Amino acid sequence: MNILVLNCGSSSVKYKLIDTADKHVLAEGGVEKIGLPDSFLKFKLADGSKKVIEESIPDHRKAVNDILNLLTSKEYGCITSLKDIDAVGHRVVHGGEKFNKSVLIDDEVIEKIKECYDVAPLHNPVNMAGIDAVTELMPGIPQVAVFDTAFHQTMPKEAYMYALPYRLYEEYGVRRYGFHGTSHRYVSRRACDFLGLPYEKQRIITCHIGNGGSITAILDGKSIDTSMGLTPTEGLMMGTRAGDIDPGAIAFIMEKDRINTKGISNLINKRSGVLGISGISSDMRDIDAAIAEGNERAKLALDMYIYRIIKYIGAYTAVLDGVDLIVFTGGVGENQQPLRQRVCDHLNYLGVKIDKEVNAASRGEEKLISTPDSKVKVVVIPTDEEMMIAKDTEEIVNKK
Amino acid sequence: MNILVLNCGSSSVKYKLIDTADKHVLAEGGVEKIGLPDSFLKFKLADGSKKVIEESIPDHRKAVNDILNLLTSKEYGCITSLKDIDAVGHRVVHGGEKFNKSVLIDDEVIEKIKECYDVAPLHNPVNMAGIDAVTELMPGIPQVAVFDTAFHQTMPKEAYMYALPYRLYEEYGVRRYGFHGTSHRYVSRRACDFLGLPYEKQRIITCHIGNGGSITAILDGKSIDTSMGLTPTEGLMMGTRAGDIDPGAIAFIMEKDRINTKGISNLINKRSGVLGISGISSDMRDIDAAIAEGNERAKLALDMYIYRIIKYIGAYTAVLDGVDLIVFTGGVGENQQPLRQRVCDHLNYLGVKIDKEVNAASRGEEKLISTPDSKVKVVVIPTDEEMMIAKDTEEIVNKK
Repeated sequence: MNILVLNCGSSSVKYKLIDTADKHVLAEGGVEKIGLPDSFLKFKLADGSKKVIEESIPDHRKAVNDILNLLTSKEYGCITSLKDIDAVGHRVVHGGEKFNKSVLIDDEVIEKIKECYDVAPLHNPVNMAGIDAVTELMPGIPQVAVFDTAFHQTMPKEAYMYALPYRLYEEYGVRRYGFHGTSHRYVSRRACDFLGLPYEKQRIITCHIGNGGSITAILDGKSIDTSMGLTPTEGLMMGTRAGDIDPGAIAFIMEKDRINTKGISNLINKRSGVLGISGISSDMRDIDAAIAEGNERAKLALDMYIYRIIKYIGAYTAVLDGVDLIVFTGGVGENQQPLRQRVCDHLNYLGVKIDKEVNAASRGEEKLISTPDSKVKVVVIPTDEEMMIAKDTEEIVNKK
Repeated sequence: MNILVLNCGSSSVKYKLIDTADKHVLAEGGVEKIGLPDSFLKFKLADGSKKVIEESIPDHRKAVNDILNLLTSKEYGCITSLKDIDAVGHRVVHGGEKFNKSVLIDDEVIEKIKECYDVAPLHNPVNMAGIDAVTELMPGIPQVAVFDTAFHQTMPKEAYMYALPYRLYEEYGVRRYGFHGTSHRYVSRRACDFLGLPYEKQRIITCHIGNGGSITAILDGKSIDTSMGLTPTEGLMMGTRAGDIDPGAIAFIMEKDRINTKGISNLINKRSGVLGISGISSDMRDIDAAIAEGNERAKLALDMYIYRIIKYIGAYTAVLDGVDLIVFTGGVGENQQPLRQRVCDHLNYLGVKIDKEVNAASRGEEKLISTPDSKVKVVVIPTDEEMMIAKDTEEIVNKK
C-alpha cells in the first residue's frame, strides 16, 4: 500500500510517500517558509542529493498541491497518478482526551480535532489545513489522523493531574497530555522487537532527545508518565524551551521584565533552553564546538541538559519501581555518544553498564550499547514517526 | 547558654527560649494575627497546657516586646531579667547567594539581608522587623541570622540554574535557592548521629513533608539539589501550593482566567495543592477522613501527593547515583505512617525494605523503620529547626 504521510507545521509541510509492503520510502521532502517571500519546496532525488525549488507558497493548500504535483511530475515524480496513493496519514499534534489511538478521519473526528484548538492553538489548526487540502485535492481518499498525545492517554490520573484548583481541569482541560507519543510508541516497540523482548512485560524508559525532547515511562506497553505537559514547554531542557522551572518564577520574571503572557510564552519557548544559557546556539553541535574552544556557558548548557535527563530517568525508574530497558532516540539521543555515556555513568546504582567502544561507534543506527552483564539494557533506536504513521494508516484503512 | 530563637512570619512571631547546655526548652509560644483586630499571644505553661492572651498587637516590634515581657513576667515568666538571655537567633528566610552559613548580625549583614528583599518580598522584611525590634529592646545583645537557603548554597550550577536566558540570573538572581535548609541540615546530621553513620560519607535524601514540603539530595554532608526553587512554590505538591507544573500552563491559565501576576501567584500558592485538588482542605488529616468516607478527589489529592514524593526520591537517587539513607520529617513525614509505607513500596528496586510494624507504630519520634537487611536505611527524625538555630547561635557567639 502506498501511504502519503503529511506533517504540517505552522510554516511547513513535510511529506513522505511510503510503500508499506516493503517499508520503502518512495519520496520525501517538504515545503518551508509558507507565507513568507522566500518559501520553497525541497526534496530528495533518487541519487540521495537534494533539490530546492523556490516559489510562492502562500498557504498550506498550495503547499500540499505542490507536493502532489511533484510526486506525479515527469521530471521528479515517482508515481504516474494520484490514484497510486492509497491513503494519507496526518500527524495531528493534539488529541486532548478525545483520542487514545489513531483514527480514520470523518466529520466527527474533524469536529473533535477542532475542539482541541484551544489547548493547541499553534498546531491543530495547521494540521487541519493539511487535512482540508487533501480532502479538496484528493476527493474520497481515506485519511487517518495520528496524534502526538494519543499514546500517553493511558497515564494514571496522579501522573497527569497538576496540583491546581480542580476546576481548571474541568473547565479548560489543564492537565498533562504529553507529546512525541508516536515516537515513544515506535521506539519502545521497535526496541523490544530488535532485542527479542516481550513488549507487554517490560519497564521501559524512552528518551526522545533532540531540539525538542521528552522522556516517557512505559509499563507493559503503556505510557504511564511523560515529561511534556499541557504544552511542550515542560520537562527536559530543550533547544530553545526552558523545560521545568519554578512556577513561582514566572510571575517574578513577568514583573521584572514588564512583559505580558505573550512575552513570557515567547521567552520560555523561543529564547530559553540551550540557546538561553549558552547565548550562542540551540544546536548541540554548535555547543560541542564552543566547549572545545573553552566556552564556559556552552559547557554549563550541556551539563544542565544532561543533568535533567538523569533526573527524569531517575524519577521514572522510581515510578516504574525499576527499569528493564532504556531507549535513546531523537537527533541528540541517536548521535551524541558522549551524552549517552555521561547519562549512563550516573546510573551505576541501577547496574547499568555501557560498552564504551560500542557506544562510541554508534551513530544513528539500531544498537545495543549496554554490556551483556548490564542489569538494564540500553539501546539506541532511530525514531521513525512517519513509518509509524504509515503503519497506523495502513492498518486502519485495511479494517474499513 | 540561654538562646532566644525568633521566627518572624508576615503576621506572626514564634519564639523558643532554649538552654543549650542541656537542650532544654525553657519557654515557647508565639504571637499571631499581628496587625489584625483579633491578634493574640499564645504560649505553653509549665504543665504543658496552652494559654492565650488576646491583645492589640499592631506590629512586629510590639510582638517582640510582649514576648520579652512575658518571659520576665512574674506570673508566666521563666527568667527574672532580660540579662538572663545570652543571645538571640533569628530565622531569616532568604540569604540569596550572599550567605552560605549562619552569621553574627552586624550592619553589613543587615545590608545584605535587605539586598535579598527583592527575591523574598514577603519574608525578609518581616525577618528584619524582628531583628530591629530586638536591637531596640535588648541593646547590645548578640544576634545571629540563620538562613533557610544557606545549606543549599553548595548546589552545583547545573542543579541550581534554570534553562532561561542567562541574563535573568545575572540581572535578577533568578535561580534555584531552596528552602527548609535548616531542617534538612538538622535531620540529615541527626539521622547519622542517631544511626552511628559518618555524615561526611553518605548519600542522603531528606524528605521534609508537611503543609510546605521539600526534598533534598545530600552528598557527603552537602546539599547538591533540592526541590524548592527561586520561591517555595516549586517541587512537591503542598497544602495550598501547586509545586511543579508546566511553565507553559501559567500563561494559558492567566489568559483563560483573565488574571494578572498577582492573581496567578495567589492561585498557585494559596488555592492549589491538596486544597485545590480535594476542594475541601489543605490538611492531610482532613484528607484521610474524607477518603475514609469515599471522597474521590481527596483520594486523588493523596495519590498525587505521594506520587510526587516518589518521583523526587527517584530523581535524587539518580543524582546521587544511589542512596544510603532516606529521612522522613515534617508534620506529615513524622506522623503519616501509611504515606511512608506507600512511598517505600515503590522503592523495591533500590532494595528498600520497611518493617511494617515498626513503621506503623512510629509517630513523631526518632525511629529506624527499615529492616536490618534493607539496602537503604529509612529513618524518621522529627525536625527541630529552633534547636539548630540555637546551636548555630551558641557556636557563633562563643567564637566572638
